[in-house]
Amino acid sequence: MNTLNNSVTWEKWPKQPLFLVLIFEVRCKIIKVVFIGDIVGSVGRKALKTIMPRLKQTHANAIFIANGENAAAGRGITSAIAKEMYEMGIHGITMGNHTWDQKDIFDFIDQDEKMVRPANFPPGTPGRGHTVIKVKDQELLLINLQGRTFLPPIDCPFRKVEEILETAKKKYKFIFVDFHAEATSEKIAMGWHLDGKVSAVVGTHTHVQTHDERILPQGTAYVTDVGMVGPRDGVLGMERVSVLQKFKTQLPVRFTTDEGKWHFHAVVMDLNDQTGLAKGIKLIRYDEDHVFMD
Amino acid sequence: MNTLNNSVTWEKWPKQPLFLVLIFEVRCKIIKVVFIGDIVGSVGRKALKTIMPRLKQTHANAIFIANGENAAAGRGITSAIAKEMYEMGIHGITMGNHTWDQKDIFDFIDQDEKMVRPANFPPGTPGRGHTVIKVKDQELLLINLQGRTFLPPIDCPFRKVEEILETAKKKYKFIFVDFHAEATSEKIAMGWHLDGKVSAVVGTHTHVQTHDERILPQGTAYVTDVGMVGPRDGVLGMERVSVLQKFKTQLPVRFTTDEGKWHFHAVVMDLNDQTGLAKGIKLIRYDEDHVFMD
Amino acid sequence: MNTLNNSVTWEKWPKQPLFLVLIFEVRCKIIKVVFIGDIVGSVGRKALKTIMPRLKQTHANAIFIANGENAAAGRGITSAIAKEMYEMGIHGITMGNHTWDQKDIFDFIDQDEKMVRPANFPPGTPGRGHTVIKVKDQELLLINLQGRTFLPPIDCPFRKVEEILETAKKKYKFIFVDFHAEATSEKIAMGWHLDGKVSAVVGTHTHVQTHDERILPQGTAYVTDVGMVGPRDGVLGMERVSVLQKFKTQLPVRFTTDEGKWHFHAVVMDLNDQTGLAKGIKLIRYDEDHVFMD
Amino acid sequence: MNTLNNSVTWEKWPKQPLFLVLIFEVRCKIIKVVFIGDIVGSVGRKALKTIMPRLKQTHANAIFIANGENAAAGRGITSAIAKEMYEMGIHGITMGNHTWDQKDIFDFIDQDEKMVRPANFPPGTPGRGHTVIKVKDQELLLINLQGRTFLPPIDCPFRKVEEILETAKKKYKFIFVDFHAEATSEKIAMGWHLDGKVSAVVGTHTHVQTHDERILPQGTAYVTDVGMVGPRDGVLGMERVSVLQKFKTQLPVRFTTDEGKWHFHAVVMDLNDQTGLAKGIKLIRYDEDHVFMD
Repeated sequence: MNTLNNSVTWEKWPKQPLFLVLIFEVRCKIIKVVFIGDIVGSVGRKALKTIMPRLKQTHANAIFIANGENAAAGRGITSAIAKEMYEMGIHGITMGNHTWDQKDIFDFIDQDEKMVRPANFPPGTPGRGHTVIKVKDQELLLINLQGRTFLPPIDCPFRKVEEILETAKKKYKFIFVDFHAEATSEKIAMGWHLDGKVSAVVGTHTHVQTHDERILPQGTAYVTDVGMVGPRDGVLGMERVSVLQKFKTQLPVRFTTDEGKWHFHAVVMDLNDQTGLAKGIKLIRYDEDHVFMD
Repeated sequence: MNTLNNSVTWEKWPKQPLFLVLIFEVRCKIIKVVFIGDIVGSVGRKALKTIMPRLKQTHANAIFIANGENAAAGRGITSAIAKEMYEMGIHGITMGNHTWDQKDIFDFIDQDEKMVRPANFPPGTPGRGHTVIKVKDQELLLINLQGRTFLPPIDCPFRKVEEILETAKKKYKFIFVDFHAEATSEKIAMGWHLDGKVSAVVGTHTHVQTHDERILPQGTAYVTDVGMVGPRDGVLGMERVSVLQKFKTQLPVRFTTDEGKWHFHAVVMDLNDQTGLAKGIKLIRYDEDHVFMD
Repeated sequence: MNTLNNSVTWEKWPKQPLFLVLIFEVRCKIIKVVFIGDIVGSVGRKALKTIMPRLKQTHANAIFIANGENAAAGRGITSAIAKEMYEMGIHGITMGNHTWDQKDIFDFIDQDEKMVRPANFPPGTPGRGHTVIKVKDQELLLINLQGRTFLPPIDCPFRKVEEILETAKKKYKFIFVDFHAEATSEKIAMGWHLDGKVSAVVGTHTHVQTHDERILPQGTAYVTDVGMVGPRDGVLGMERVSVLQKFKTQLPVRFTTDEGKWHFHAVVMDLNDQTGLAKGIKLIRYDEDHVFMD
Repeated sequence: MNTLNNSVTWEKWPKQPLFLVLIFEVRCKIIKVVFIGDIVGSVGRKALKTIMPRLKQTHANAIFIANGENAAAGRGITSAIAKEMYEMGIHGITMGNHTWDQKDIFDFIDQDEKMVRPANFPPGTPGRGHTVIKVKDQELLLINLQGRTFLPPIDCPFRKVEEILETAKKKYKFIFVDFHAEATSEKIAMGWHLDGKVSAVVGTHTHVQTHDERILPQGTAYVTDVGMVGPRDGVLGMERVSVLQKFKTQLPVRFTTDEGKWHFHAVVMDLNDQTGLAKGIKLIRYDEDHVFMD
């Protein structure tokens, strides 16, 4: 509780008079959702394996979601890796612009009901853009969207999510959106677009955790980017010498994932069982050298 | 003491045994630099005015730098605003891609020795790309660079900074770089490019503070983005309804700065007086509703 | 007759044996469509005024369409200018990414049944994306689309046009598409996408006429870019010194339309009255110094 | 003679009174340069092989330059292909953004004195950005530049070419620039930038020949894009079904060069032996079905 690096609301509520907390506890159960940022390559998977037992202990009964679009050597995901992640305790996987990097994906994405790719790909795209994640007696509608600023032109994510919510809003209390996008402006705009309509909007893609987690005025948890899980001393998880060479020479360079130490980024959200809205959002940031620091 | 590259641990170091601190104090004096993120419009300036007295008290004798490229209604800066900022205690101003948004700039940038615009603009560009900020008996070389990923094509920032350092490195112990860039990859690459060669590399432009502040292995303080100072409930400081309308309709929309409550983001760095390298970097994040929380 | 898809050969066809031409005339009436490229500013309008009488004489009974998105000083169009163009004999006006540059547009685009803006703007956008142009007893379905490569992200033009054709195909024999796009790849792909489904696909936006006019195998007339009508010695119609300064300095530069001599680019297409498909497409290229050269 | 800046009129000039031509011949010898657009894949090389004997006959003693950056299956060039092109009679090869697509290039580009890659790559880039092509007693300075609009950020092509010309201008009368760029604005601006300073500026990269060949006022031959040599019924030479699929689905698609019929695009320029400036520029456009039409 001494970790000041988290949102204002979160920090304060335990300090409130005990009876208020008790009343609150009676009236509403808190549902925890842990969202883990882009898992990058084998180092990222190793970090996930190391941290998951600890997270499951700390956040018992939480729903665990992770972005897996870089899990296979930085590019896409395979069925074996997805299976490995589910076995570690991940309940749902979100993707992004790297969804299709491994050919394997086309063989299993239609069958995998726990994996979502950006919903605003054109109609007819393999896989699904939203799905229902069931954990014990809880159901969470998981939506994946992709931004268009500095990214390929696909369908409008703002209209697409409205379309999904139109039918789903009445059926699902907990709605979680992973908005995979580059520009901070587009991500923040999506937060405002969905404030009060979904439980949480979290961003992925830039691989750097942002320090702007908050509960928006209408009750939606928001953070611009959750950050990544993978090599700490590379560039977004890739080996840094080659990335630097690319920037300096503009010659073709083969990028491989860095093999050094990892860091791990995630967010934990507390959702109100009555409204589906968020009560708290907290950043998680570990490092191979400081696993036990929280 | 080897864990200073982490905000949480950092906060704890004063609690370490006194004699260690004393030994440290004898052997090396710490120079503090406070870098304040993009000041956006009148709300941003109001926030700066509110917070500066407090910062100057907490970080006595620090060198204060701020990014001012959005200070005039979100677009550029005027001589009056620059003057106002200097009077508040800002010792140096960095700019970025909005440098030229106010015509006024061309009248005073050549004379203003405390203001830098990106050094990698073509030769002949008004103003200067690096300057020496003198505060009491301290001299700090302040460099401004601009990225090229998702931004207009100017000269290579990686080569430009090498060129500046070639002559300046021997003369200045404290070297501070504001890398105004969009892509996290380009910013992180610049951090590695300059690790051990400068005191600090901090990013600006995306207006969202990142939670990745660290001391790189060779001693350079780094953070991908310092974040902004200005309207908290807009989109990067602009009024959110119009930004959302733009994303949804793609029609021309007039953006104005939001007039609501502010938030304030900065970083504080501790530099070793002997080596010029960093001993610590800490994020600062205030909010109009929680000014006194630290 | 099978070599009509080439401008050089086309010019020769009247020299073919008379009886062949007569047979052709009996079996199918030819509908002529003249499409005039982006009219840029007052110089462009002057050129149009100079050339139109001549074009109407040479191509009697033709349907005249022009792109008007740069007609008002290079940026958008006003109701006065649209009216002026209709009075000169233009039957339909297409637009593009500059559609909304003049505020005036929002006051009249909903009423103007002869003007189309890109159909793939989001639902709810003012104006219409396709319209029926009636000239004497002929009806032509005029469609405007905008590309997404190197342009803002709007709806998919490939799907949008299929959607329009689904209902319109049976009702209209002559279908004309102005695809306002930057990348040659996207434009050529649209030509293949619509080959045999529409009378013609012509490109606009790059302001430079391309030398690739042809009849695609299934009968659709195609050219990557029709070219512009306006200042000949500028850069896309803008005064060249300022454009060069922009490229060299990357500083803000105010662009105004060039006031020098004009050039004029258009294409003439011959459509088969029975099938609606194209029999010929010919480039038109005039110059203020060589108006009477053809 | 003042109407040479037009392909149609150009074709007519030999019909002018004989004595004018004779006077001209006495006063200045004409040097011919034939520039052949981007050769794409094996179909492009086949087209080149078919057309070269004919071109060498029609334009005896001409200097033949070709863009070879797509010669190896649409991506880069190999030493074997370069050798094959030289054997066909090509005197110099220009490249572009695909220069480095074949690994082979790094083994021979430093040795090949007849091949240029964009000069505005960073210092230290393998190969050369300009070279002297010697054909019989003629010397031509061949320069390759690459644009930055919608292309990776490299050094400024406008400044780079000035730098090259500063030393080369006095030594070489004939200077030929292949500006490999996407945006028509950047290409036209380069034409104006170099008007009167070089013999010719021709554009490549968009693969579509433009119909704007002209002699600029100070004597430089100019065309925005020479066009390509290769598959006629694909998209920029690539098989069209896959390109269309990419645009419609945004899924990864493997592009291969189309294997159908070819088209061939080039320009022929006449340069004044005294001034090095251009007297004429004419478009060449052949098609596998109409090889002998000119």
